[in-house]
Amino acid sequence: MPQPAQTYQPAQTSQPLPPVSVLGLGMMGTALATALLKAGHPLTVWNRSPSKTGPLVAQGALPADTPADAVAASPLVIVCFTTNDNVGETLATVDFTGKTLVNLTNGTPAQARALSTWAKKQGAAYIDGGIMAVPQMIATPAAYVLYSGDEQAYETHRPTLAALGGTKWTGTDPGRAALHDLALLTGMYGMLMGVAQAFALIRTENIPATEFADPLRNWLTAMLSGVVPGVAEAVDSGQHLTDVSSLAINQAAFPNFMDTFRDQGISSDLFAPMQKLLDRAVEEGHGADGLSRLVELLKLTN
Amino acid sequence: MPQPAQTYQPAQTSQPLPPVSVLGLGMMGTALATALLKAGHPLTVWNRSPSKTGPLVAQGALPADTPADAVAASPLVIVCFTTNDNVGETLATVDFTGKTLVNLTNGTPAQARALSTWAKKQGAAYIDGGIMAVPQMIATPAAYVLYSGDEQAYETHRPTLAALGGTKWTGTDPGRAALHDLALLTGMYGMLMGVAQAFALIRTENIPATEFADPLRNWLTAMLSGVVPGVAEAVDSGQHLTDVSSLAINQAAFPNFMDTFRDQGISSDLFAPMQKLLDRAVEEGHGADGLSRLVELLKLTN
Repeated sequence: MPQPAQTYQPAQTSQPLPPVSVLGLGMMGTALATALLKAGHPLTVWNRSPSKTGPLVAQGALPADTPADAVAASPLVIVCFTTNDNVGETLATVDFTGKTLVNLTNGTPAQARALSTWAKKQGAAYIDGGIMAVPQMIATPAAYVLYSGDEQAYETHRPTLAALGGTKWTGTDPGRAALHDLALLTGMYGMLMGVAQAFALIRTENIPATEFADPLRNWLTAMLSGVVPGVAEAVDSGQHLTDVSSLAINQAAFPNFMDTFRDQGISSDLFAPMQKLLDRAVEEGHGADGLSRLVELLKLTN
Repeated sequence: MPQPAQTYQPAQTSQPLPPVSVLGLGMMGTALATALLKAGHPLTVWNRSPSKTGPLVAQGALPADTPADAVAASPLVIVCFTTNDNVGETLATVDFTGKTLVNLTNGTPAQARALSTWAKKQGAAYIDGGIMAVPQMIATPAAYVLYSGDEQAYETHRPTLAALGGTKWTGTDPGRAALHDLALLTGMYGMLMGVAQAFALIRTENIPATEFADPLRNWLTAMLSGVVPGVAEAVDSGQHLTDVSSLAINQAAFPNFMDTFRDQGISSDLFAPMQKLLDRAVEEGHGADGLSRLVELLKLTN
């Protein structure tokens, strides 16, 4: 899915690139603004705390005094705030007639759908986006952004958006990009819990973390290839029986982990819910199933 | 770290291979026994429920009537039970004089150290091992086994053990292999929590899991490469400040995940402790630090 970022003609060519406004200059917003400047777009920037605009202005960006001024300056307005509450508050009364609003703030599908409704009332074409990168990756081939919402506006502005990284369209439901984004990041947070706990565990016996990093990464990379496709097939088919690693075997082994965390003096909090889930799976008769069964058990019954 | 499994001369050559006994014929024990048979070792097998011995006997293994008979049959005794409690119970009174006991049962470092002490009293050289593979991977280049304990016995039997997969020595402390094993599997369980939750999330809008599998795997693989080395360096240096993805940013975004899980009708139980940990990190003044700080916060204070 990561696609190479397309790059575009620098500004000194005969065809000037369209102007863009970026609102929100945290680490990510600054990375986005910098990428657009480097690609040659005339850039207007606004941030609640004006001091953040300095480095970008030094590189050629124009500072806007107000959010309304920033929106008025460009047909394409990219917003990257800390939360979607900030989007609604900051832009509540701003006129977006004829503008495209690309909201790259981390948020939920429900928030994206509500902001899409609001933005249309303000005259905007609304696109929601989910950035699959840390700021340092922006404009590199490793970065990509998921988009959903107004497809015509997306096609119009895709060449500009490609300056940020690969572009991936997920559908006209404005909540769809957020859903994909949150699902990928959900996978990442689980992985990070595992990585943090694994390092905490080996550190209890003073094994250097850097000595353990490659074995851990290699093991988890191999497990991803070994486990994810099979889990996906089982989820789609509803056939969860396994001859690889049953929930009963995993449940039997799990107390070793909890005991070891306690014995070694580290918290078991991050893993207690997994133990409960494995216990429940076996209690409910799914002991012979594989880990794919857990996907079903995470559904809340009404 | 995964090493190619070394293969050995089949039994029909002039140099006969040493006999081995395998006790415990669950999925993993059966895979181990099968690999040893295929490598050409004379094999004696025992299982609590004798019916499990049938397929191996059909391939040339000798069934033992009792654990003591199985131990008596070979200089190298490999045990793979469901838990280490089974090891102590099943073998409590068996004479191991002159034998090497390789315990591949999943267990804790503390259990391994206790069993090492017990086994020495019974006359055995004790090696504890952690299998980094599912049964289907045994004897393939992807499988490896971590060992620790009696190094002389390990060197003696390493050619035989290599029939199971790559061999990796972790040290003379008999608990060390279990610690490495548990730390790697801890990382895996975290990853599996993330994968299960991610699939549950996308399934709420009927996106096929198989359609999402490659994006998820590619994203997590990229994150492993992008995150693990930096976390390891920060843990070893104690320098947790980041310009990549601060705990404050992660804490601000995390409610989106919990809200989305609730909005979409899936459990947030697996992720609630991560939210608490991020909240605590920021409360305690670590908001500008990276995720490596969480490794420190998992240490229990006395």
